Amino acid sequence: MASNDDQKTLVFYCEHLLFNMLQFYTQESEQLKFDGHVLHLASHVHPSKLARVDNRQLPCRLLKNKSTSSVLMKCGTDSVSLFSVSPAAERLRHILGEDDNTPTPTIFTEMDTLQNEGGEIEWKESARWVKFEEKVEEGGERWSKPHVSTLTLHSLFELRTCLQTGSILLDLEGYSLPQIVDEIVDRQIADGLIPPDLKEKISFVLLRKHRHQTKKPIHRSLADIGKSSSAASSEFVRQAQSRSMNDISDTPSTDQLKNKFMKKIPRDAEASNVLVGEVDFLDKPFVSFVRLAQATTLGGLTEVPVPTRFLFILLGPQGKTKSYNEIGRAIATLMVDDLFSDVAYKARDREDLIAGVDEFLDEVIVLPPGEWDPKIRIEPPKKVPSAEMRKSVLNLNELGQMNGSAGGAAGGEDTEFPAPHELGEELKFTGRFAGGLWLDIKRKAPWICSDIYDGFHIQSISAVVFIYLGCITNAITFGGLLGDATDNYQGVMESFLGTALAGTVFCAFSGQPLIILSSTGPILIFEKLLYEFSKSNGIDYMELRLWIGIHSCLQCFLLVVTDASYIIKYMTRFTEEGFSSLISFIFISDAIKKMDTYHKITPVCSSQPDYITSYKCECIAPDQGESANPFLYFLYFNLTDMDWSQLSKKECVNYGGTLVGNSCKYVPDLALMSFILFFGTYSMTVSLKKFKFSRYFPTTLRKLISDFAIFMSIMSFVGLDMLMGLDTPKLIVPTEVKPTRPDRGWLVMPFGKNPWWWYVASFVPALLVTILIFMDQQISAVIVNRKENKLKKGCGYHLDLFWVGVLMAACSFMGLPWYVAATVISIAHIDSLKMESESSAPGEQPQFLGVREQRLTGIMVFVLTGLSVFLAPVLQYIPMPVLYGVFLYMGVASLSGIQFWERIKLYLMPPKHQPDFSFLRHVPLRRVHLFTLVQIVCLAVLWILKSTFLAIIFPVMILGLMVVRKLLDLMFSQHDLAWLDDILPDKDKKTKEDDKKKKRNKKAAEPESDEEVRKMLTKF
Amino acid sequence: MASNDDQKTLVFYCEHLLFNMLQFYTQESEQLKFDGHVLHLASHVHPSKLARVDNRQLPCRLLKNKSTSSVLMKCGTDSVSLFSVSPAAERLRHILGEDDNTPTPTIFTEMDTLQNEGGEIEWKESARWVKFEEKVEEGGERWSKPHVSTLTLHSLFELRTCLQTGSILLDLEGYSLPQIVDEIVDRQIADGLIPPDLKEKISFVLLRKHRHQTKKPIHRSLADIGKSSSAASSEFVRQAQSRSMNDISDTPSTDQLKNKFMKKIPRDAEASNVLVGEVDFLDKPFVSFVRLAQATTLGGLTEVPVPTRFLFILLGPQGKTKSYNEIGRAIATLMVDDLFSDVAYKARDREDLIAGVDEFLDEVIVLPPGEWDPKIRIEPPKKVPSAEMRKSVLNLNELGQMNGSAGGAAGGEDTEFPAPHELGEELKFTGRFAGGLWLDIKRKAPWICSDIYDGFHIQSISAVVFIYLGCITNAITFGGLLGDATDNYQGVMESFLGTALAGTVFCAFSGQPLIILSSTGPILIFEKLLYEFSKSNGIDYMELRLWIGIHSCLQCFLLVVTDASYIIKYMTRFTEEGFSSLISFIFISDAIKKMDTYHKITPVCSSQPDYITSYKCECIAPDQGESANPFLYFLYFNLTDMDWSQLSKKECVNYGGTLVGNSCKYVPDLALMSFILFFGTYSMTVSLKKFKFSRYFPTTLRKLISDFAIFMSIMSFVGLDMLMGLDTPKLIVPTEVKPTRPDRGWLVMPFGKNPWWWYVASFVPALLVTILIFMDQQISAVIVNRKENKLKKGCGYHLDLFWVGVLMAACSFMGLPWYVAATVISIAHIDSLKMESESSAPGEQPQFLGVREQRLTGIMVFVLTGLSVFLAPVLQYIPMPVLYGVFLYMGVASLSGIQFWERIKLYLMPPKHQPDFSFLRHVPLRRVHLFTLVQIVCLAVLWILKSTFLAIIFPVMILGLMVVRKLLDLMFSQHDLAWLDDILPDKDKKTKEDDKKKKRNKKAAEPESDEEVRKMLTKF
Repeated sequence: MASNDDQKTLVFYCEHLLFNMLQFYTQESEQLKFDGHVLHLASHVHPSKLARVDNRQLPCRLLKNKSTSSVLMKCGTDSVSLFSVSPAAERLRHILGEDDNTPTPTIFTEMDTLQNEGGEIEWKESARWVKFEEKVEEGGERWSKPHVSTLTLHSLFELRTCLQTGSILLDLEGYSLPQIVDEIVDRQIADGLIPPDLKEKISFVLLRKHRHQTKKPIHRSLADIGKSSSAASSEFVRQAQSRSMNDISDTPSTDQLKNKFMKKIPRDAEASNVLVGEVDFLDKPFVSFVRLAQATTLGGLTEVPVPTRFLFILLGPQGKTKSYNEIGRAIATLMVDDLFSDVAYKARDREDLIAGVDEFLDEVIVLPPGEWDPKIRIEPPKKVPSAEMRKSVLNLNELGQMNGSAGGAAGGEDTEFPAPHELGEELKFTGRFAGGLWLDIKRKAPWICSDIYDGFHIQSISAVVFIYLGCITNAITFGGLLGDATDNYQGVMESFLGTALAGTVFCAFSGQPLIILSSTGPILIFEKLLYEFSKSNGIDYMELRLWIGIHSCLQCFLLVVTDASYIIKYMTRFTEEGFSSLISFIFISDAIKKMDTYHKITPVCSSQPDYITSYKCECIAPDQGESANPFLYFLYFNLTDMDWSQLSKKECVNYGGTLVGNSCKYVPDLALMSFILFFGTYSMTVSLKKFKFSRYFPTTLRKLISDFAIFMSIMSFVGLDMLMGLDTPKLIVPTEVKPTRPDRGWLVMPFGKNPWWWYVASFVPALLVTILIFMDQQISAVIVNRKENKLKKGCGYHLDLFWVGVLMAACSFMGLPWYVAATVISIAHIDSLKMESESSAPGEQPQFLGVREQRLTGIMVFVLTGLSVFLAPVLQYIPMPVLYGVFLYMGVASLSGIQFWERIKLYLMPPKHQPDFSFLRHVPLRRVHLFTLVQIVCLAVLWILKSTFLAIIFPVMILGLMVVRKLLDLMFSQHDLAWLDDILPDKDKKTKEDDKKKKRNKKAAEPESDEEVRKMLTKF
Repeated sequence: MASNDDQKTLVFYCEHLLFNMLQFYTQESEQLKFDGHVLHLASHVHPSKLARVDNRQLPCRLLKNKSTSSVLMKCGTDSVSLFSVSPAAERLRHILGEDDNTPTPTIFTEMDTLQNEGGEIEWKESARWVKFEEKVEEGGERWSKPHVSTLTLHSLFELRTCLQTGSILLDLEGYSLPQIVDEIVDRQIADGLIPPDLKEKISFVLLRKHRHQTKKPIHRSLADIGKSSSAASSEFVRQAQSRSMNDISDTPSTDQLKNKFMKKIPRDAEASNVLVGEVDFLDKPFVSFVRLAQATTLGGLTEVPVPTRFLFILLGPQGKTKSYNEIGRAIATLMVDDLFSDVAYKARDREDLIAGVDEFLDEVIVLPPGEWDPKIRIEPPKKVPSAEMRKSVLNLNELGQMNGSAGGAAGGEDTEFPAPHELGEELKFTGRFAGGLWLDIKRKAPWICSDIYDGFHIQSISAVVFIYLGCITNAITFGGLLGDATDNYQGVMESFLGTALAGTVFCAFSGQPLIILSSTGPILIFEKLLYEFSKSNGIDYMELRLWIGIHSCLQCFLLVVTDASYIIKYMTRFTEEGFSSLISFIFISDAIKKMDTYHKITPVCSSQPDYITSYKCECIAPDQGESANPFLYFLYFNLTDMDWSQLSKKECVNYGGTLVGNSCKYVPDLALMSFILFFGTYSMTVSLKKFKFSRYFPTTLRKLISDFAIFMSIMSFVGLDMLMGLDTPKLIVPTEVKPTRPDRGWLVMPFGKNPWWWYVASFVPALLVTILIFMDQQISAVIVNRKENKLKKGCGYHLDLFWVGVLMAACSFMGLPWYVAATVISIAHIDSLKMESESSAPGEQPQFLGVREQRLTGIMVFVLTGLSVFLAPVLQYIPMPVLYGVFLYMGVASLSGIQFWERIKLYLMPPKHQPDFSFLRHVPLRRVHLFTLVQIVCLAVLWILKSTFLAIIFPVMILGLMVVRKLLDLMFSQHDLAWLDDILPDKDKKTKEDDKKKKRNKKAAEPESDEEVRKMLTKF
């Protein structure tokens, strides 16, 4: 049946497929022709040999070696073997290379099978493909989950034969299904493939109604099921007489138009319809592959109103439904294959299509039958190789080589070095005055508008609520601590206002508005030491602080104009992780410490309930003579009949009474309740965040629940707290805008209180503050700007530092605390703004697209913080333990993304259970453990230092980390460090050289440059 | 290079593989020969046609149709096509069918590649296979996780060529590697495949040292890595001169012997060694496949001291390492394939091996390149198709058919009906007097000894602790409730002794010793009603109860001797699930209700801590005149100076004082503490149980933690409780053996207290008790004996009922509560005794092997329960909330295995996220939901009834469930019910008939009986 030409190609193909032992193609694309086939230089040919051939200019003969199908090039006594490339690849390179600039549409494939439902013949949708296969579950009347189409080698070879023997109609002008069917059948008759008297029967079958999965099925009884799969009976003719020839309407039905599945199909998609079925009037299969000249909507043919471009029809004799279905699945899978669909669009003839199948066969991955159960539906992988890569491989003619390496599959070797760590051009040293700052402004300016309107999204609300709560908790905590440390020179009020002011300004104008400013531990410690120093030396604290602020601001400006931030480049993952885990641990330990405090303040009453009678706390009236307070004295006499026992604890103490009794020191229930609130908030947040990955509820709802997890947990436990009515410690927000300490105003005067030389001397402590701020700010910025976050709008280290400097000065003048980037809250901010792709082909994993980069959420958070003074009536219901639960969550969540943390977990896992981290594939476990141990030791040292007064030199300690990292270069090979950490910038070059050298070593057998070989080959 | 014969086979193979469009083989194995190939009847041949051919007895001609490679059998004007089966399958059927009774050993495959490490050539292990592939992570110096070997089609075809062109040495007599290498090289030289002068070089390379992954690697610097993959250089000869020819010792090294991996390899295993590498002195590949006559340990060749049976050697010219590796992986994967390894053992010549490869190729599953990333390592599946099935397919010659259906792969159709529900022969109606009981005894007798010694296992300890705690908690709870209901005629003491007695006897002698007896809710309600009845009618409760017990016992005996238990057969999953979920819900609600009670008894003090001064509880001395108690009166006067306020709450009440104060009703902290203990125990148990599936710690430790989860949680929270020192309600165990009510003895007399006619009339209430006991006992037994539990020692429904009857009478005589099987605790018992396979090939999932069936744990539990009276000092530290936490866990855990529960969850899941349950593939979702809804309604009705006095007819309600199930036959098709439930026994036949009919319909094309066809075919 196949033409003689087909046969020839086929035999050749066979030879190629079966005899191509040791055929490897060179990377050169120069063509040599022999016996009609293009020949390529075998890659194992030693260049030295080639060179010799080239130099001698001997007459060469080409000899075909039958046993190996290679071609021997004999030049004198030397010989070089050449191999023929498969004609399939050759063809594909030709047709795909033609006009690569017009991208082909995405193909949606629907497979319909012929069903005989109660004597009525119809086409029933049985599977569909956008990228992965979805099958109609026959009994379940539902779509299966999208899965990878597992095919049999058998069905692929059968399909190949189908394409060889069937009729191929390319660029058929078609406007309606009946006309197309006519053309197909006529062509088959013309080719002598079917007798003319079958025309009516075949047309009748092909024009039957198509039932799609969307249609409500008729209820079928058990008895019906038996019939469903029997073949279309010989009632054909009778039916044909009694009913219209064509069941299919020309226009799409409402079912089609309403189909929600349309959302999942890309807009430019075209359909390919696969129709397979068995009929009893055929002796041999009727196969037709049609490509329409124009994609046309063919009435009710397709489930969705997508225009049809391709049609594959397979009708065959009875008894082989399964085999037909498999062939249908094979062509459908091919049609959605990126490479084959390109071929299908551009094929000029039958051979091109067959070349496409061959190429597909060459790339398939094979699972051994004994190691895999074919019944398992394979879930779509997270990532598939891109079509571009596969095509480029073809174009570069690295085919043979690549096939070999695709085989590397599970066993393949990965690259020796990971992708290098990139910090982007933001940190390049410009060498010009304020060059970095200028670039930062230039980089950020185009985004001004989008920085605002990108913020209008439902997700922003949850982000604002989450970060707002984090911010005010922080403000209250640090405000309280600062108040304690500075005798209320800076208290909760100052903390609120300062946070609001600094945050708003920074979010509005900075280079990276996703960074959240906050008071931080080191600054707190500095203020504490400074206040103690000025108090003991009789120096005015506020004025001294102002001058430090001014100096520090100027120093920051100096760092900005000199592009000093570029040294951050030297900070590798080691330093970054050390810093951020330390901050996370501080968060966690602070939250737990706070809870412990509550436990101490409100001890659990360990009394026996039976002895409750002996527990009391009474207010005893003070001895009259001892009462020195005349007001109280008067009150006492005025209220001689006053029942002291009716006074509350506070009143009793106020009026000078004494609390006597063994229950005075106990506060029942509060400690346990606080624990329940604290732990409950934490666990509920964790569970709700995880809920996104559960199977329940639609994705949107789950995402919403996960986004609002913290808000919902807070609300729930505030509710529980109110329900229990216990006097748990609540959030206390100042309600009036006035300085915490009555003897200070809102503006600090720079002169007058301290001797003049202090104005100069404050340069020294300012230097410490500057280092502290610089390190804290820029490390947080590096963490926020990590490549994993896929930020698109760029960042501005210099611009950020500039604004931090400005705010330093401003806050100093107003006597507000100093602010710097807070790592944990900034990470939480980014996490709450993450975007994922929504509509994608069924089974494709949603891709992390990036972060909603905008200034709106940040500004909102800080405006709200400022307004919190007026929100006090609402906020006062929030118990502090709930907020500490949120803190604990933040700390733990920010740990989870850190590789260091993953490596710590490895200590507890036996090697065989360890996850398949790429660094574990390349670095011996003991080296990994050693590296982790170094980090743990560093962190422990930092932790200990942090707990002492040395905390003030915290930023210097981070510099210390960088030194440790430098020393690691001596302990670990650059190869190991490249996987576990990043290579330091100056080592970068060296490694690349190493890399090159290695490559040279490895591929010594390959010709040095393309040019040479081309020259050489053109001589033949 | 290949002989002419090879060529011919190959061409034929090609035709088969590429032209076999529509080749399907009949299921008959009669052979027709044509043109040297065996022909088979095409399955799509219509039987009517065959029949006609048969009847007419026309002379027939066989014609070969070139285009389809089919053979046409022309008989007059009719023609029937016949198809040739592939010679590969033919060959395999022949060699594998020969002696199927000798199982071939398991094969362990090791692949070593040639490395040139610093100028020194050695073989380095690069991967190994037991069943799945484990690769050496080059950089990581570790084994990868076991994964499915994904191969390329390319490498398989190349391997096929290798086997065709290389030398095949079968049954070589080999005793040492040098001798074997000699033979191989000599053969190659003899065959003219290599020139004789290469002998020394090849032998030298093949005898280099083998470095296995177990050896501690030398620390390698970055520079070294570059060299590692470069080919063995031309230093060969120099090296050969300077060093010994043979690096390999004859005896296994200590490294080999010590290798722990040996545990993972089956005892009977033999090794297959794959050696691949590139050398610069060869022009074409050197391939050799060797099968030794006897498996021999070849020194340090293999990682483990497993004797080598197969050797595959591939040395080739430089530049194609990747390709060689892929070919090596392909042969290694084939060697561990069950089918191919059989072929390898039994192959008679080269062609047999090639047929094996072809057969393998025919079965492979193909993944499309665009839908799968070849870099992903596929985790081993939970189940793989068994080798037996694959072989039997071959033997039955259903090859073609099966290939088609294996293609069904992901899209394949499953069977229309699930495997039918089997209840086993235990419930067959024997029709003889006590026939069932006799069979039960006969069935259990052989296990008497193993029932004891199977109990000696560490797991038993945890099971005993777990079940013991459950039992005493149950005993205390029901004891307390019974005491309340019967004015202490039966109290905690009776409950303990009764549980111990009944449990020990039942576990020692019953048919199913895994069942745990306990008091149950319905019995409690019955006793309550009975006591109220006798009290109000002046009848002696104990005597009446004794007679009811006696009657009930006799009725049980009647049920036993009539094999009445067989009606349990009519209970389908619907009834079973309804019953067990109801019991689980009762467990859960009881646990929560109890906690709520604590909350009510010990309310949380919602006071403001500030007003603590106003809270007190004082003991006020009674008014003197009111004191009617002369003793107290005396005491009062005697202790006029007694400080009433020093008295405890209890003392105060005892002495007639009055508690005055607003804090008297509060018990601080206790409610919250109880909640923490309750919820903490539950959550910790759940987490620890789940810990088995985490990645941390070795498997054994994790299993231990999971087994002892309940014990550890109880211990932890008992510890916490002791630490807090709060007076939480504790477990109260009686410490003296005496009846709870002083006025009753340990024996109840049958006569004397009630009128004689009560002795007869008690027959009626006894009937209710009997139904109750029968249903409760047998449903629990059915649940325990579920097929999923893989019980091997059989069960004994009749024997169980017999002993329950005996214990009824015994307990009645002693005035102890009645006992019957408790579902939830019995399930917990089984769960805690589950066994999983331990040593299996890496990557293979541990299989659930069954339950440690024995009598020891049960007996221990109940002996301990009896001894608990003496354990009181220890047990009294256990707070009740902890035990209720355990109860909650038991209830929730027993729900988790129920399909009904899974179906309820489906309500909350959008279809696309629903798990791939097989019933969802076959039954429309709305039918599933409807079925679930019916179950929910039934349960709700049962729940409401249970809460009223109707609880006493609980067993009748279960009968009601069976009626509802019967009615479901009208609502649902048998097909749907078969998937969601089981088919009722009488419907079973009908369905099978339906099934048959369907098959007939479907395979109408197939001949009616084998006999006929055989007759017909032999006529040719």
